Amino acid sequence: MHVDHLGIATDDAGELAELYADLFDAPIAHEEEFDGLRVIFLELGDSYFELLEPIEEGTISRYLDSRGSGIHHVALETDDVEGALETARGHGVELIDDEPRPGAWGHDVAFLHPKSTGGVLIEFVEH
Amino acid sequence: MHVDHLGIATDDAGELAELYADLFDAPIAHEEEFDGLRVIFLELGDSYFELLEPIEEGTISRYLDSRGSGIHHVALETDDVEGALETARGHGVELIDDEPRPGAWGHDVAFLHPKSTGGVLIEFVEH
Repeated sequence: MHVDHLGIATDDAGELAELYADLFDAPIAHEEEFDGLRVIFLELGDSYFELLEPIEEGTISRYLDSRGSGIHHVALETDDVEGALETARGHGVELIDDEPRPGAWGHDVAFLHPKSTGGVLIEFVEH
Repeated sequence: MHVDHLGIATDDAGELAELYADLFDAPIAHEEEFDGLRVIFLELGDSYFELLEPIEEGTISRYLDSRGSGIHHVALETDDVEGALETARGHGVELIDDEPRPGAWGHDVAFLHPKSTGGVLIEFVEH
């Protein structure tokens, strides 16, 4: 597995994308509206920063209300999300998604519950 | 630049390393005690998870007290930390470190203040 992206909750994805592009030489690789969010992916080597700005009430708007802007999750790329979930289940890890579901950028994704993984919200992603 | 590592604050680096090694097939690449911390690096492709367990009072113990365990910072590798800091300074970004200082694993590091970077604590690291 490798670090596919870091999900970052923000109330202004456009402004943050501009700053990060300048500071880190990280060009915009993809933009879309998905699941009540404005989503911008910035390319950093073979990983991405995924900027998540809520345009509707939901998980990210609630996260911003309670924790403020910052790193929301880390996504690990695998070619077998179902197998990765099965391994996690076998270790007693609580799953947010029992099976892969459609995520941003047309990928298949599934999240593990952070209370099982040291407080880190981890996503498996398959391109 | 690319994602060098993700710093994760935890009160038990050994236990978390064992779980992550199993779940993500992420072997231990390096271990040390540094700056009042037990530090374990796990290899994930060409990036790392850096598990940070306080063995003395300090930044990470205070982080755990206020926010709980979870992702603490993201480190971006560059071959020119001073140049990266100069670019950040030019964009009005507040710096935690005005110049590179010795970090874990013998690397040179410098941190940007999260209030200037969308709530994300960002480290530049040069190997």
